[in-house]
Amino acid sequence: MSLQTTPARRASSQGANIPALMNIATRLRIDSVLSTSEAGSGHPSTCCSAAEIVAALFFAEMRYDAADPQNPENDRFVLSKGHGAPILYAAWAEAGFLKRDDLLSLRRLDSDLEGHPTPRLPFVDVATGSLGQGLCAGVGIALNARRIGSDYRTYVLLGDGETAEGAVWEAADVAAFDKLDSMCAITDVNALGQSGPTQWQHDMEALAGRWRGFGWHTIVVDGHSLPAILDALEQGRQTRGRPTMILAKTLKGKGISAMEGKGGWHGKALKKGEELDKALAELRSQLVPEDGPAPRPEGPTGARRPAAKAGTVGASAYKLGDSVATREAYGAAIARLAATDDRIVALDADVKNSTFSEKFEQQHPNRFYQNFIAEQVMIGASMGLAARGAIPFPSTFAAFLSRAYDFIRMAAISNLNVKMAGSHAGVSIGEDGPSQMALEDLAMMRAEPNIAVIYPCDGVSTEKLVERMAYHPGPAYMRTSRPKTPVIYGSDEDFPIGGLKVLRQSKADAATVIGGGVTVFEVLKAYDALKQQGVSIRVIDLYSLQPIDAATLARCARETKGRVITVEDHYPGGGIGDAVASAIAADGFTVERLAVREIPRSGTPDELLDRFGISARHIVAAVRRV
Amino acid sequence: MSLQTTPARRASSQGANIPALMNIATRLRIDSVLSTSEAGSGHPSTCCSAAEIVAALFFAEMRYDAADPQNPENDRFVLSKGHGAPILYAAWAEAGFLKRDDLLSLRRLDSDLEGHPTPRLPFVDVATGSLGQGLCAGVGIALNARRIGSDYRTYVLLGDGETAEGAVWEAADVAAFDKLDSMCAITDVNALGQSGPTQWQHDMEALAGRWRGFGWHTIVVDGHSLPAILDALEQGRQTRGRPTMILAKTLKGKGISAMEGKGGWHGKALKKGEELDKALAELRSQLVPEDGPAPRPEGPTGARRPAAKAGTVGASAYKLGDSVATREAYGAAIARLAATDDRIVALDADVKNSTFSEKFEQQHPNRFYQNFIAEQVMIGASMGLAARGAIPFPSTFAAFLSRAYDFIRMAAISNLNVKMAGSHAGVSIGEDGPSQMALEDLAMMRAEPNIAVIYPCDGVSTEKLVERMAYHPGPAYMRTSRPKTPVIYGSDEDFPIGGLKVLRQSKADAATVIGGGVTVFEVLKAYDALKQQGVSIRVIDLYSLQPIDAATLARCARETKGRVITVEDHYPGGGIGDAVASAIAADGFTVERLAVREIPRSGTPDELLDRFGISARHIVAAVRRV
Repeated sequence: MSLQTTPARRASSQGANIPALMNIATRLRIDSVLSTSEAGSGHPSTCCSAAEIVAALFFAEMRYDAADPQNPENDRFVLSKGHGAPILYAAWAEAGFLKRDDLLSLRRLDSDLEGHPTPRLPFVDVATGSLGQGLCAGVGIALNARRIGSDYRTYVLLGDGETAEGAVWEAADVAAFDKLDSMCAITDVNALGQSGPTQWQHDMEALAGRWRGFGWHTIVVDGHSLPAILDALEQGRQTRGRPTMILAKTLKGKGISAMEGKGGWHGKALKKGEELDKALAELRSQLVPEDGPAPRPEGPTGARRPAAKAGTVGASAYKLGDSVATREAYGAAIARLAATDDRIVALDADVKNSTFSEKFEQQHPNRFYQNFIAEQVMIGASMGLAARGAIPFPSTFAAFLSRAYDFIRMAAISNLNVKMAGSHAGVSIGEDGPSQMALEDLAMMRAEPNIAVIYPCDGVSTEKLVERMAYHPGPAYMRTSRPKTPVIYGSDEDFPIGGLKVLRQSKADAATVIGGGVTVFEVLKAYDALKQQGVSIRVIDLYSLQPIDAATLARCARETKGRVITVEDHYPGGGIGDAVASAIAADGFTVERLAVREIPRSGTPDELLDRFGISARHIVAAVRRV
Repeated sequence: MSLQTTPARRASSQGANIPALMNIATRLRIDSVLSTSEAGSGHPSTCCSAAEIVAALFFAEMRYDAADPQNPENDRFVLSKGHGAPILYAAWAEAGFLKRDDLLSLRRLDSDLEGHPTPRLPFVDVATGSLGQGLCAGVGIALNARRIGSDYRTYVLLGDGETAEGAVWEAADVAAFDKLDSMCAITDVNALGQSGPTQWQHDMEALAGRWRGFGWHTIVVDGHSLPAILDALEQGRQTRGRPTMILAKTLKGKGISAMEGKGGWHGKALKKGEELDKALAELRSQLVPEDGPAPRPEGPTGARRPAAKAGTVGASAYKLGDSVATREAYGAAIARLAATDDRIVALDADVKNSTFSEKFEQQHPNRFYQNFIAEQVMIGASMGLAARGAIPFPSTFAAFLSRAYDFIRMAAISNLNVKMAGSHAGVSIGEDGPSQMALEDLAMMRAEPNIAVIYPCDGVSTEKLVERMAYHPGPAYMRTSRPKTPVIYGSDEDFPIGGLKVLRQSKADAATVIGGGVTVFEVLKAYDALKQQGVSIRVIDLYSLQPIDAATLARCARETKGRVITVEDHYPGGGIGDAVASAIAADGFTVERLAVREIPRSGTPDELLDRFGISARHIVAAVRRV
């Protein structure tokens, strides 16, 4: 029996205290079973299959400060199979960060030990529980190590079932392309999904062929053999130029004969009383004699870095009357901001020449991450980067952000600093047709209560809002447009998130008309047309939909006798109209909504704005109506 | 030179009129160039790389009636790389279905030849243009052949760049698992994405390793060699037990020296005048002498089947006062409906024991399609099934439908009969925590203007609405809940889509309070509590959010002095509150919205309803406030 203890992780199975690690694995099982039985729900069986893997990672492989889970030099661990939360909590209790008694508060309203991990806990980088996301986050965490020049390693534990999720293969591609050898993933191949066997069951070669095909260093091990796991982890550490996948063959419910390898135990806690007692007795009987000091994690090696300071986009690149698309102003602004703050990074999904994030790449190639045509990993990697201190700006066509909505949802749950930009919004893109037109992106983003939703109409407001969104705490979304629009704001104009701009007003305004992005200019055209007819309207550029300036909107509504019209290049559900209506409802005002009310089609931008009811002509008619 | 003509497809390259096919490929290039130049935009370079592939498929491989693209026995073709639309249109012109002159209307408002294909055209099954979706649809189309016992084959043409999309690998998995040997996919490996080279460029072995790893019969060919393509297609036809992927090495812009293999030509039309003329001259010079009859597609072999008739869920399984979760009633109802209509199919993503679609599987295993943990292919395959006449019911946790939002968006653009169900909506799921709670699904679905959004609160309404949604034209979404709820409707109650139920009313109602799903019961509890205090309220079960019964809502608002309160287990943006507010705005009424206003957490269902402000207590307080 080997008794050598530290530094355990440098020595593979040869230097590890195997009996002690075996006992840790058993204790992790016991704690997982106890906490889920106390909660009356949860997933003990999925914890039991992973016990040796987690014991090896936390107590022989990873370098981290157990008293300071947020230390930026710690090795990182992402539990992609989030329903295994109880064993994650048990590991942090074993490491000393949590009190063992606290584990029994699992899933209670007054406890941060939620059913699936969230960053309410300092050792959780990204919320998991929507399967297939952890490896994407891991890509971002590993890219961040490269960004800050740290040698921390990134470990991701996946379930086998979740590798059916396409997002896993987006991450597999990017990690291989980016040669992320600081990443080691482990798949807990317990062969059982929620409702039945996985499609591959224990065909380890079928699984290995997939990872090898995607260019990963792939190792198959017995997932209940600590020496085998430790040796594989060491191989991962020694591998250069590509990430490592350890496929660990395990049994769901391992260690409890009533559950082990059996279906029907997914998401089921053992009943307190005889059922639980029997399992606990069985697990306790698996404790083995051990000798030598208990394995403790080695600390991280790097020194703390100085805190970063906020940057600025600097002086405006535009003057009144210039013509520039907001998507182009966006690309230029993130590049300039990044020159003053090295936390700013940008991510693309092969549309950098359309979103103009290529301007960022040209100036900061080392902080520009290409994901090719894969939006889920683009957002997932952004989550990982944000969790480790970067300020990521992922961008693509707004329509294709819908591909990553589940990731956006989880980024909101995690309240991460992910700064999304979606270009080519609405029918105003023209001839490419509906597949390329985002007409539900505002609804999608605004539904998440903590995502700031902004929508600039010109170059200056875009620049200013890029800076604002970068330092706004939490997730943010900027909608940009394809057509060039005139610059209407002076360079000294301020654009706080949550504000709006009243562009035209008089004491005799017949109605308040609210636009966003391209429709601001349709509203201005309508203003001119109506003025010639002797009618004045109040014109608002609602550049911030969430938060929203409810007070000013209500005041304008009041001053225009409650006549409020919204105009949006978006479907009616969940967009500008709903946002304004919700904001002024308490003051008793309602909204007339001009929006795209059917599935659009190809045509020129102007034809489409008119065909789908949001051009100046329709605004004039609506004002005349109210 | 071989002059044999029909049946060309049965004979591989040995029997094909190669020179004639070469000329067809050249004409397809010419037409693609002409139509995009006339439009002034579009993707000629991506058409040119695929010309031999399309010529081989349409004029030597596929069996179809060119005069009747919707013939249910036709072989099917999905252009996953939707930006190649011009060559698809050119092929149907070459086949005689479109007039060649019509090609010049490409991308015009008055033309159905849109920038990317949509089912406005009878030869398009599913709208494409959001990359990486076509193979998923192909899975559904191929499953449908099995369902109806047809030998039609399914062909999918992908771009290489789009195989970075995870959804492609979800489809790859399912197609291999389901042994879909009637499916043959071809990847046009032109090595260039939109903004630069693809990650694999022309490393055909890297690409082949991926498909082999996923269990596909994989063939690498020169994508500009017609004999090689034809032989590979024949190999695909001969392959049993697994799908075939033909990786065709091509050059983007092939045939036009200014473009061929060069970057910077994605999505760019040749300028009319010298640039276009030079390219046309070059292409025309590539026409070769040919002999023998022109290749024509062989027709389909099967006989038309009789039209299907609508089925019924039959007599209700529940009586007043029973207790059943709507998710369970849903599973039982789709199973019963399917017993009377064999177009009804169900799809799962490894949660059948939670959504209760397992009831369907038990009774109709041949019409139940397991996608494992992969929501994108579940919806994508549903699109393909719906396009070919099935009525698919895909279901999973509502939260995880967000994973497939881009597919749902494209299903809406395609206006397909996809009947989605999302269970475990809202905080009322309890301890599992926010990752499992759908709180934005109503916003997501309601944003699409043609998706029917329904939300039953009890077992009877669920059964009735399952039947209604099945035969409602176009996409539909049903939100179901985890907790058991009492049956409050008699079995003779009718539930038209677009309706609502007034559950309590009197002439003296102080306010109209509108709930949906689980909150209906909170509103009823509030009604009882208020009644004891001498206050009566009008109680509405808004089981249909879209379409919505605006007239009844406005009448109730009027009869309760404009006091309207909505209560929803959903975030405020885009849900019940916004839907009601939008519906009654024209009548001048506003809405007070009770909704979940922050990211929730784990806890018991009742604790969470109360903590997040949507329990009976909060409703009573809101009524007292208004």
